[in-house]
Amino acid sequence: MNPVSHPQKPVTTGFRRPRLGIIGGGQLAKMTAQAATQLGCEVVVLERQEDFPAHSLDTHALIGDWDDPQQVARLAAEVDVVTLENEFVSPAALGSVPVLWPKAETLALVRDKLRQKIVFAEAGLPVARFADAPTPDAVRRFGFPAVLKKRFYSYDGKGNATVHSADELPAAWVKLDGDRNPLYVEEYCPFIRELAIIITRGQDGAVVRYPVVETINRNHICNIVKAPLQVPGVADIAERAVIAVGGVGSFGLEFFELPDGRILLNEIAPRVHNTGHYTIEACECSQFENHVRAVFGWPLGSPAMRAPAAAMINLLGVGDGPGTPVGLAEALRVPGAHLHIYGKSRSAPGRKMGHVTALGATLAEALATAQRAADCVRFGRAP
Amino acid sequence: MNPVSHPQKPVTTGFRRPRLGIIGGGQLAKMTAQAATQLGCEVVVLERQEDFPAHSLDTHALIGDWDDPQQVARLAAEVDVVTLENEFVSPAALGSVPVLWPKAETLALVRDKLRQKIVFAEAGLPVARFADAPTPDAVRRFGFPAVLKKRFYSYDGKGNATVHSADELPAAWVKLDGDRNPLYVEEYCPFIRELAIIITRGQDGAVVRYPVVETINRNHICNIVKAPLQVPGVADIAERAVIAVGGVGSFGLEFFELPDGRILLNEIAPRVHNTGHYTIEACECSQFENHVRAVFGWPLGSPAMRAPAAAMINLLGVGDGPGTPVGLAEALRVPGAHLHIYGKSRSAPGRKMGHVTALGATLAEALATAQRAADCVRFGRAP
Repeated sequence: MNPVSHPQKPVTTGFRRPRLGIIGGGQLAKMTAQAATQLGCEVVVLERQEDFPAHSLDTHALIGDWDDPQQVARLAAEVDVVTLENEFVSPAALGSVPVLWPKAETLALVRDKLRQKIVFAEAGLPVARFADAPTPDAVRRFGFPAVLKKRFYSYDGKGNATVHSADELPAAWVKLDGDRNPLYVEEYCPFIRELAIIITRGQDGAVVRYPVVETINRNHICNIVKAPLQVPGVADIAERAVIAVGGVGSFGLEFFELPDGRILLNEIAPRVHNTGHYTIEACECSQFENHVRAVFGWPLGSPAMRAPAAAMINLLGVGDGPGTPVGLAEALRVPGAHLHIYGKSRSAPGRKMGHVTALGATLAEALATAQRAADCVRFGRAP
Repeated sequence: MNPVSHPQKPVTTGFRRPRLGIIGGGQLAKMTAQAATQLGCEVVVLERQEDFPAHSLDTHALIGDWDDPQQVARLAAEVDVVTLENEFVSPAALGSVPVLWPKAETLALVRDKLRQKIVFAEAGLPVARFADAPTPDAVRRFGFPAVLKKRFYSYDGKGNATVHSADELPAAWVKLDGDRNPLYVEEYCPFIRELAIIITRGQDGAVVRYPVVETINRNHICNIVKAPLQVPGVADIAERAVIAVGGVGSFGLEFFELPDGRILLNEIAPRVHNTGHYTIEACECSQFENHVRAVFGWPLGSPAMRAPAAAMINLLGVGDGPGTPVGLAEALRVPGAHLHIYGKSRSAPGRKMGHVTALGATLAEALATAQRAADCVRFGRAP
């Protein structure tokens, strides 16, 4: 595919603002672009399709495949610094980018969930027992119950299969297409809660730690985030994990809390993260603004919360249909609810179409407000 | 001039988001676009020049003269609703816009500062004594000291002249080119403070009142805003003024506080206003989001403050030069300072290039934080 450029307004003055290139144009790119434009930057997005959430916030867009080194090089030539909104871009495409944050090595490492785990284990961080699983035999040797996982391209719980016994292994192996996809295996962890945290690290090594949050998933998709949570140790582990992968920028880290109180680091995302959307309204400086600051080499802002509690609820598509919500006006009527509509052209079941954040004196209050607004909005007809 | 359209990304899916058209592409349009895109809207801007602050947030732009009815009609044809970021658009150009908020009648009325005053006086609102001044004789009859003012196209103190005695009248008349510009005259008011307030009014008549603020001007340009201020009566007068002009959307209203405690309504701006920039961080729902809600006919959000105090300081150009600030990184180091850089291509003395907002437990604290950050940033070299 040839790149299609839609120059919006050729800059005739010769004046050049700081320019951020983002690979990917979804809601994460959109919210990053919002933070960047507030600071006077321009944003150029590389996306595969012409209609995408960040389209309304970029100075212009390059339409092309982000796994194509030529397209990525073209983006890089136009901007001062390149960053990403997803971790699936092929390492080959990133080789030619002169200024890329996070670094290509960080991305290559994080992209392979087995390598992630090895690096974390070597750094002495608490992770579930794991092993490479090139063959079904390797899984049998590891033991059951276990969770079989894809090393690459898995997100939102896609690419995982719980295997309670050897009997279930063949079906799981087929489901994940283990003969073609590299897999690994992890100890099955019956956690009581899932926790997450955003860490931003600057080019100078400065680190800010956002509050620990509880995430409540539905069908493996982040659904509700409750902030803050007092769970000692999580932020320390998270910071060490970001340092272990040489991270620069905002990172989302997910944890399991076990019945005995132990905390296990589950995975790291080398980018702004759904579990940090609440920081736009709830924190002094959002994960998005801090990501922009980090990739431009600017000082980081404070992650301190501006209210005692915050709750974020994702607005997921209930069916196929247009991307316009039903019930937006009703949701806007809920005092204290902050609505974010991503502007996707199509709704699909489980697709992230927007979110709502509310602050409160207590978690219960914030959650009730957010829920009241979220209940008003619907994307797509139920099948 | 022919309109030049820069379609950024033709929407191929047939899907159409709510579309807001803004006449003018400066910082007010930019911040309005930020609020609109968060709610899933697209923004189309009509601007005269190709490089303007809102350029990074519009879906696409029409470049053309906003006083040309054809250009405005072209904008209107592309969007669901049209609004403005300045009150100087000629009424003739607005005649053909099917959905325009505020209404053309409101804009025509507000645009003429003498008509404003007459409407306010007729509504029983406290204004300084005033009179039409078609000739110097009319000013002499009015008496001195007086302030001679242009009825049209005056802003930031441009278009005013204080006349202490009859001797000074000829020079003031020439300065304001009274033979060609319609003028009016007002009683000279030695005020002790200038106050302001943002009022948003919905299409259904619902009204939200933001806190009263103190504005400190320098060379007649809004320089510092301190929120909130407890001055009884101001919000009532402001709401009645917006109703008197039939306003829909966010309006900025400016007041004089006299030594004897009396409050005089000075003027109304039929748009989002510099004295309301602090609402982005300081209020539940900003003047910009509420303007977007109002013009789309959506319910208004709460103007309640999220901190006890807030201060906003404008970042004004000190000289001619590029629009990139010096000292941004130092300013970002100030905890709690929220930087906004408008992305204008050129700095000029006194030109509004950005602003900084800080919240605090007290006004003094908020102001100190904002000042510390503002002191770091400089646009253009001092002459």
